[in-house]
Amino acid sequence: MKRRSNLPDKVDEVEQVAGNGLLHRRALLGASAAGLAGTALGLTATGAAAEQLVEQPWGLQIGEDTPAYQTPSKFAKNVVRTLANPKFEPRSSISRTPHHLLEGTRTPNGLHFTINHTGIPEIDPQAHRFLIHGLVKRPLVFTVDALLKYPMTSRPAFVECGGNSVPLFSPKPIQADVQALHGLSSCAEWTGVPLSLLLDECGIDPRAKWFIAEGADGPHLMRSVPLAKALDDAMIALYQNGEPLMPGNGFPMRLLLPGYEGNMNVKFLRRIKLVPSPAMSFWESQVYTEPMPKGKSYNLTFLNEVKSFITRPSPGQDVKTPGYYEISGIAYSGKGKITKVMVSADGGNSWGEAALQAPVYSKAFTRFRMPWRWDGRPVILQSRAWDDQGSFQPTRAEFVAARGQLDTVPPVVAFRNHHFNAVTSWAVDARGKVSHAYA
Amino acid sequence: MKRRSNLPDKVDEVEQVAGNGLLHRRALLGASAAGLAGTALGLTATGAAAEQLVEQPWGLQIGEDTPAYQTPSKFAKNVVRTLANPKFEPRSSISRTPHHLLEGTRTPNGLHFTINHTGIPEIDPQAHRFLIHGLVKRPLVFTVDALLKYPMTSRPAFVECGGNSVPLFSPKPIQADVQALHGLSSCAEWTGVPLSLLLDECGIDPRAKWFIAEGADGPHLMRSVPLAKALDDAMIALYQNGEPLMPGNGFPMRLLLPGYEGNMNVKFLRRIKLVPSPAMSFWESQVYTEPMPKGKSYNLTFLNEVKSFITRPSPGQDVKTPGYYEISGIAYSGKGKITKVMVSADGGNSWGEAALQAPVYSKAFTRFRMPWRWDGRPVILQSRAWDDQGSFQPTRAEFVAARGQLDTVPPVVAFRNHHFNAVTSWAVDARGKVSHAYA
Repeated sequence: MKRRSNLPDKVDEVEQVAGNGLLHRRALLGASAAGLAGTALGLTATGAAAEQLVEQPWGLQIGEDTPAYQTPSKFAKNVVRTLANPKFEPRSSISRTPHHLLEGTRTPNGLHFTINHTGIPEIDPQAHRFLIHGLVKRPLVFTVDALLKYPMTSRPAFVECGGNSVPLFSPKPIQADVQALHGLSSCAEWTGVPLSLLLDECGIDPRAKWFIAEGADGPHLMRSVPLAKALDDAMIALYQNGEPLMPGNGFPMRLLLPGYEGNMNVKFLRRIKLVPSPAMSFWESQVYTEPMPKGKSYNLTFLNEVKSFITRPSPGQDVKTPGYYEISGIAYSGKGKITKVMVSADGGNSWGEAALQAPVYSKAFTRFRMPWRWDGRPVILQSRAWDDQGSFQPTRAEFVAARGQLDTVPPVVAFRNHHFNAVTSWAVDARGKVSHAYA
Repeated sequence: MKRRSNLPDKVDEVEQVAGNGLLHRRALLGASAAGLAGTALGLTATGAAAEQLVEQPWGLQIGEDTPAYQTPSKFAKNVVRTLANPKFEPRSSISRTPHHLLEGTRTPNGLHFTINHTGIPEIDPQAHRFLIHGLVKRPLVFTVDALLKYPMTSRPAFVECGGNSVPLFSPKPIQADVQALHGLSSCAEWTGVPLSLLLDECGIDPRAKWFIAEGADGPHLMRSVPLAKALDDAMIALYQNGEPLMPGNGFPMRLLLPGYEGNMNVKFLRRIKLVPSPAMSFWESQVYTEPMPKGKSYNLTFLNEVKSFITRPSPGQDVKTPGYYEISGIAYSGKGKITKVMVSADGGNSWGEAALQAPVYSKAFTRFRMPWRWDGRPVILQSRAWDDQGSFQPTRAEFVAARGQLDTVPPVVAFRNHHFNAVTSWAVDARGKVSHAYA
């Protein structure tokens, strides 16, 4: 039985909100869509016949055993993190989140990005200690069991490496997928003890204006953080999406500084020292800095600015035939809540407002979605986000004017910059192939 | 250095809101708590000395390799599901969520409960087909790839087996932990295509009032669902907490009926047939029913009613010394949003209102928390929840009066009833040991 299409195809006339087929969401919702939806969407459902419900092997046999800890289907074996150091040579190990294969607003724990400079420590939580000292009235040491007695709070928060998206400093668009370009950003629900509560208990010396946080693993990574952040929304996180932290994400405890660049959210946290001024550690003065066009650098840069990117379609997730698709992506801001995401299918000439998955959380992934009808011609897809603190995502041209770009296309390892947050462009060619572009 | 306690211990006088040490949350928050918190909480942090920051082995050596899919620390090996059929004999396999070891509002995918009657099918998503037929104008077959082009939505929703908590039908409190008693309930963010949109495309015949959903695995489980639910919030879910569904939870697709008992959320969904009346399938007429005291049964019972239970402290999570603890638990309702959770530490004589983790989602886990100062005497801890639809959790006595209980303590396998949602009581004895009680 063939698919019928006896209804008028009026979608372009009535529902287009921006160039190259961006549609109003009401085209799809509720009774107004009745009748129109089937034809207008141009979807690929095939006419049904009872004989299509062939009994498959899995309907005729006993299945697999149930494990104590569930892991993905073998048919989802491509839904994994990519490893920058797959042979585990003695250098940093980096794994990236496969955004193009995920949906919704949270990153499952198996797929949260990780960067570990000397491997993942196997920390015995019973032996681990966390010290608060320096400019406090009573230095205190906390065990995991002690922290479990404290009042806790839960919140979603993205964590993003300051170096996420740095391939976009290249003068030509590096042909890679969204996982390679933007995979050093993830979002989880974190549960733990507000740092302010522990500092209250220690008693803050009025001379304290900053604190240094230090990790317990080999690098003993140290970062200086303004004390105001500790008193705002900093957390000693013990749980990630409901379960104890993953080994690569800081088990048994980490500092969570919502909206601040990833490495400041010190993993395997063993120490917080209150101090009068920044410590200018190796990590903040030499590693996590931003070279500027004139040869100077920013340092003590904390905030991950407002950002968005389209995850589907994206390179490797080609559109196969003309017709209806949903453009889906992620937006977030280290300053607050996403208020608006605009999508363009014509390289920025016209924009339509995407739907945001509600409720929108501050400093967390916000899923945006936009109906799109592709007519088979080449297009450029872009997204651009705004937050409730008055910030918005720059175009790449605006960003390069302020921050510069490299003169030549370097090997990926040579990118020594951070905090790229400009618009990302995907080009769709006439065959539906999606590639990275500058536009 | 010994912990100082030179501040007056006034918490019981100023901040107690109900008997046996339930405290007002303001005792712990913000500037008002300064000074008071440290002493009043009676927490177990030990005085700090620099020498306590002994360099541990994990600070001196290279750590472990980074896997493509992250799994928990070997030190969290007890944070797993318990298996009712660990030798995988030819019967149903049941795994339960370890609520007592989790926090926050979501269940991570590794730990979502599962029930599979003939094992977990290994379904090739490319070969899987989903058919909508019966009283529709255009029967349609959908592949996974076809569904991925449709507009999607995300929402958290709990899924709970109708048989969760049935050990509480026993006339005496069965000594088991919260995982054994209430572990057949979990909560994830589900992303997928609204069923109403697919039915719009098929065109609903006005004679259709119900639909039957059928799974593709061996049991071909079938349940009848009112069509109104399809047009309300039913979803064909493809993603669970952001990644493709877990194998035990219905990969590659399942029906999600927020608030309706677990088995109706048909996993491995292969067919929805629109029909004029319930099909009275084996599953709905023989299996998932509720025997009543007079020998009759309820069937076609869908809703999981409002419920709550304390996860910490709970059996196996003893309180070790008198002092401050946080009582933490989960509440949810199949009808809507949780509006209030009351906690008692004196077996129901007095109640204090718990804090709810915001925002509260409809038909999803809501985390509640209540500060508590244990004075070392025996107490009975309880929680009781209310929803925005006018429902509230019954006491066990009220529940038994309406629904009955068993005459003798049976082996667990003999519980043939469903939808127990009354108050759960934990007894704390003078040594701090927590056990299951009726009160």
